[in-house]
Amino acid sequence: MITGKMQALTFIKPGQIELIEKPIPQAGFGEALMRVTTTTICGTDVHILKGEYPVKPGLTIGHEPVGVIADLGPGVTGLQIGQRVIAGAITPCGHCDSCLDHHGSQCGGKPMGGWQFGNTIDGAQAEYLLVPNAMANLALIPDHLTDEEVLMCPDIMSTGFSGAESGNIQIGDTVAVFAQGPIGLCAAAGARLKGASKIIVVDALENRLKMSRAVGADITLNFKGSNPVEEIMRLTNGRGVDVAIEALGTQSTFESCLRVLKPGGTLSSLGVYSKGLNVPLDAFDAGLGDHKIITTLCPGGKDRMRRLMNVVASGRVDLKPMVTHRFKLSQIVQAYELFASGQDGVLKVAIAP
Amino acid sequence: MITGKMQALTFIKPGQIELIEKPIPQAGFGEALMRVTTTTICGTDVHILKGEYPVKPGLTIGHEPVGVIADLGPGVTGLQIGQRVIAGAITPCGHCDSCLDHHGSQCGGKPMGGWQFGNTIDGAQAEYLLVPNAMANLALIPDHLTDEEVLMCPDIMSTGFSGAESGNIQIGDTVAVFAQGPIGLCAAAGARLKGASKIIVVDALENRLKMSRAVGADITLNFKGSNPVEEIMRLTNGRGVDVAIEALGTQSTFESCLRVLKPGGTLSSLGVYSKGLNVPLDAFDAGLGDHKIITTLCPGGKDRMRRLMNVVASGRVDLKPMVTHRFKLSQIVQAYELFASGQDGVLKVAIAP
Amino acid sequence: MITGKMQALTFIKPGQIELIEKPIPQAGFGEALMRVTTTTICGTDVHILKGEYPVKPGLTIGHEPVGVIADLGPGVTGLQIGQRVIAGAITPCGHCDSCLDHHGSQCGGKPMGGWQFGNTIDGAQAEYLLVPNAMANLALIPDHLTDEEVLMCPDIMSTGFSGAESGNIQIGDTVAVFAQGPIGLCAAAGARLKGASKIIVVDALENRLKMSRAVGADITLNFKGSNPVEEIMRLTNGRGVDVAIEALGTQSTFESCLRVLKPGGTLSSLGVYSKGLNVPLDAFDAGLGDHKIITTLCPGGKDRMRRLMNVVASGRVDLKPMVTHRFKLSQIVQAYELFASGQDGVLKVAIAP
Amino acid sequence: MITGKMQALTFIKPGQIELIEKPIPQAGFGEALMRVTTTTICGTDVHILKGEYPVKPGLTIGHEPVGVIADLGPGVTGLQIGQRVIAGAITPCGHCDSCLDHHGSQCGGKPMGGWQFGNTIDGAQAEYLLVPNAMANLALIPDHLTDEEVLMCPDIMSTGFSGAESGNIQIGDTVAVFAQGPIGLCAAAGARLKGASKIIVVDALENRLKMSRAVGADITLNFKGSNPVEEIMRLTNGRGVDVAIEALGTQSTFESCLRVLKPGGTLSSLGVYSKGLNVPLDAFDAGLGDHKIITTLCPGGKDRMRRLMNVVASGRVDLKPMVTHRFKLSQIVQAYELFASGQDGVLKVAIAP
Repeated sequence: MITGKMQALTFIKPGQIELIEKPIPQAGFGEALMRVTTTTICGTDVHILKGEYPVKPGLTIGHEPVGVIADLGPGVTGLQIGQRVIAGAITPCGHCDSCLDHHGSQCGGKPMGGWQFGNTIDGAQAEYLLVPNAMANLALIPDHLTDEEVLMCPDIMSTGFSGAESGNIQIGDTVAVFAQGPIGLCAAAGARLKGASKIIVVDALENRLKMSRAVGADITLNFKGSNPVEEIMRLTNGRGVDVAIEALGTQSTFESCLRVLKPGGTLSSLGVYSKGLNVPLDAFDAGLGDHKIITTLCPGGKDRMRRLMNVVASGRVDLKPMVTHRFKLSQIVQAYELFASGQDGVLKVAIAP
Repeated sequence: MITGKMQALTFIKPGQIELIEKPIPQAGFGEALMRVTTTTICGTDVHILKGEYPVKPGLTIGHEPVGVIADLGPGVTGLQIGQRVIAGAITPCGHCDSCLDHHGSQCGGKPMGGWQFGNTIDGAQAEYLLVPNAMANLALIPDHLTDEEVLMCPDIMSTGFSGAESGNIQIGDTVAVFAQGPIGLCAAAGARLKGASKIIVVDALENRLKMSRAVGADITLNFKGSNPVEEIMRLTNGRGVDVAIEALGTQSTFESCLRVLKPGGTLSSLGVYSKGLNVPLDAFDAGLGDHKIITTLCPGGKDRMRRLMNVVASGRVDLKPMVTHRFKLSQIVQAYELFASGQDGVLKVAIAP
Repeated sequence: MITGKMQALTFIKPGQIELIEKPIPQAGFGEALMRVTTTTICGTDVHILKGEYPVKPGLTIGHEPVGVIADLGPGVTGLQIGQRVIAGAITPCGHCDSCLDHHGSQCGGKPMGGWQFGNTIDGAQAEYLLVPNAMANLALIPDHLTDEEVLMCPDIMSTGFSGAESGNIQIGDTVAVFAQGPIGLCAAAGARLKGASKIIVVDALENRLKMSRAVGADITLNFKGSNPVEEIMRLTNGRGVDVAIEALGTQSTFESCLRVLKPGGTLSSLGVYSKGLNVPLDAFDAGLGDHKIITTLCPGGKDRMRRLMNVVASGRVDLKPMVTHRFKLSQIVQAYELFASGQDGVLKVAIAP
Repeated sequence: MITGKMQALTFIKPGQIELIEKPIPQAGFGEALMRVTTTTICGTDVHILKGEYPVKPGLTIGHEPVGVIADLGPGVTGLQIGQRVIAGAITPCGHCDSCLDHHGSQCGGKPMGGWQFGNTIDGAQAEYLLVPNAMANLALIPDHLTDEEVLMCPDIMSTGFSGAESGNIQIGDTVAVFAQGPIGLCAAAGARLKGASKIIVVDALENRLKMSRAVGADITLNFKGSNPVEEIMRLTNGRGVDVAIEALGTQSTFESCLRVLKPGGTLSSLGVYSKGLNVPLDAFDAGLGDHKIITTLCPGGKDRMRRLMNVVASGRVDLKPMVTHRFKLSQIVQAYELFASGQDGVLKVAIAP
């Protein structure tokens, strides 16, 4: 059993986070204690910092853990202390009705389903992390993969790829992805993995569009200087795209997705619409366009993690260049500042003790 | 070849329709001429009459034809003059990219896909109807079924059932249907056919709720006198429904559907939202609820009609009581008045020469 | 904690089962002890008795438990002693890769996946039953349902309905079911629940065909006195059926299913083919018929049980008449004799202490 | 209108084909006359030559046409003489029940569905080809693609990719493909397009295994010198593959597919089993393994062709190296000899006038 103190990045109040000392938690029934060796910061964490997404003061933030099993609670079998593991941002319990009915990401129901780390329980931006339902959630890292190589699996790859998966992309489809932050980049990579033959991505930052081409986009549109809806309709000869993926969470990108969609097409929506949505009649074809609008909270669970690490191992997509900066855990507040600023070409930061 | 004149209910201008004399049309390549023996009026036709859905002055209205083949154009094989047939409201060509890619209802693309009768070409409220792509669209009526028994197939059953189908209802699901006009009633019947074990329907007219129980609803809620969202959450122990079907086309019913949906549930939307939609943040779970919103324009084509007539023949659902009134074609303007008024318990009217 | 002795129906050797005294088991981590109030005998149990399906001598047989929670092991939350519950024949753990990848019935992998009760661990034909992964497997019985009303849920309904579900039956489909034992009867009922408009069933026992009509079959064929393949092709005008369900596990029924299948149709296979299969070239269209052959081991888990009990509660299907005989646990060996003989119109027997 | 004579490769009797002179056919209602500029030989054509697959003496063989529209029959709109086009090996009519119910490849029903060219009507190994239902079947070749670049689309790509599609491959799946002829190679390429992260292929010819690696296989097994079933189980840590694709049509490869399949996995079968199949009990897990066995006749229709040409244009897969030899139409009998011999590294031959 591990006892003692640890450093943990803690939400104090809107606008204030601090690295403070907390007791190392103890693993209860079915739980595991993970020593975190690498983690990262998500756009959602910045929303939490700004008070745009509410969490309890005192909570440790972060939901993207890579680490080593430090301790195992009673009832946990099949895992061993010392194993290198990751857990998904979403931690399905495996035994509730949602999990058994194949909606593990909605484990536990409203309002945020299976997203617990750094939301309803302490998170991963700390020296240690308590993982609930460890047997359902801890996936072994293959020996030949480094921490940074699997750092995108817990959330970014899982969420981005799920945008392509929920869109049910078919071989030969044309796909548009609006916004090319880390999630949107992974959505474009996922569209490529699913067989899309033409992937059109939209953003305003040239460094992101450059990265888009590296992960699989065929055509990049900078919406500063062009109307992406008109451009996409032109590129598809007026036909529209089979699948449009929204990866930002704004009225404008959602509406653009609807406007470039072919009749019968699918809008796969990944964004968090913190301001609600207005769906104009014409963009929506008054509801008669046979459209599908699918929202997706990224799947978790160890089998999902296993699959994503297999994709990394296969070399199908190389997401390592997405880690643009590295920080010590002791510097994590500076890391937030850089990440939130979007300066210096930052995409994802790696945080290690 | 049939020549001469016929009576046809014609859109003159917003607020004015008239039964006028027109030449009987001639069947061209791949077309058939149908002598209409029974037809009916749809809520959409009333929108056209009121000018809320625009069509060209001079157009014959109506998209629900039951009749007899009167003539066949060149190139049509496998059909014979004198056969009793129906055609769907949607008439897929069978050879465009949409049709070949399994989106026949979006045949021909924006803005209204495969809906041609009484929309882009002359419709069924007439003595004769020209049917395009007859080989793809004319389905033989089994001898033992009457005109009125198959009158709901071209649109009402096809649309209503598609609400249940698009919702991908599973055995044991709980389903809510908002609005119990003809389409909503068929959506409830469709939910029953698909294996829902609890069907909760909402309307304000008692005669419609009575009909709901006859076609398969388990629980009827009159929204005058209760809050249906609260009531449905109570009836599902706070869990919400697996599938919510919208069958009216208003902001209020759409939003209620979202609010009663379980995390990961499906909103199957049948309504025409002639005023657009506003999707509030809380109802939408900010987009993180793994919701599916599926809009559906009813499938057409002769195989769909064959299946629906098989359902009628099986006795699984008895929709004959939905035909509450009968008129001669010469009285069709009065039929519109009654139907548009919703008075006298009217659900659907049968129009015959 | 419950201690003491209990009676348990035990496999001694091929051809010999005995009710013997065993210690009441103790609930370990995540487990529950169920006091069995009603159970039944499955055709598979008879295979075990005859030695056709191998289990270890000393094993308690039976996989269809209805009972009351008598004790809970450490780590079990959300359940209480005294609650009335059922568990499925298949008991997914919820946390292995198969479970997390939506194949709970194959939990644990080859050779028999998630089927543990009366197979790899002690079963339900006893006074007490130890239930593994209780939080994933115990479903509360609604107060107003009796033990016998839910007795078909753990296996017969789940397996039979899964035949219809795996066949992906659509509204208006024509379905054939070969063999009308308890599983085949539930497959026919499931086909009705899924919207088939014509259900043709085949058996040789008139009492079973009579029951078929009660649960939803439209046409019954007694294969003594007719060639069911020819008859079905005639009834479908040479078109074949959309879905054929095999519910016996013999070469003859499997092959007949293939022969009545339309091009592109689905053979949903429920039988245990204890002698292997030979697939003749002509029945298989040499593999070019776009056929789907889906085998299904019934789904388990508490959400599946919840859904099935909802179907019972809805009154959609009435399977109570399938319980034709009742026995005390002390008489269970006689119950096996009757059940194995198929005499006296036996379908399912209820066994209670 | 084009009149005159043309050369056509004609089946005389088992073992004998001849290039003979026939009248150029005339385009009837809905038909188009294509001047064939490039075509190829399929393994099925060799079966025809050998008399293993029966066709009528006098029939022109071949089902993989690339060409130019030479004439259009009455009723054809939207196409123009002189356009470069391809048609699929399968030519769905678009208006029969199978086509309208999304089974276009089974258009027309048993025994061979929508496969007409070189089977039930004259085929493509000729100077001219009559294309039925031209509006549903002729797809325009993008200007920048050469004949040889699209030569695999009508059959090889469509069939091979459909093996991956019918297997419903998911991101991160492990896939095995048995046999690496042209179809198997395209199945491996299709598995890669669908997101498989580990693709294991089996063949005995080193030149084919080398080509496998070029189109996307991760691991190649030469079954001469190893037991591929054991090897695949070892490579998957005893777990088995998610999807196994059969691309030869023999008992041995079918059975091997079953043996390497994980519980709940899918066997996607592309082969023509001209000798029937025997399914051993142990390989089939007695039918309780939740296996899916899906057979697929390649999809046709112009939208399928459009999608495949988009894949070619995208550069996702480069199948040009599969064309290993080129012949004049006048030398086609020699081309058959080489192709049937499998000598000289032959994979596909291009035949041009």
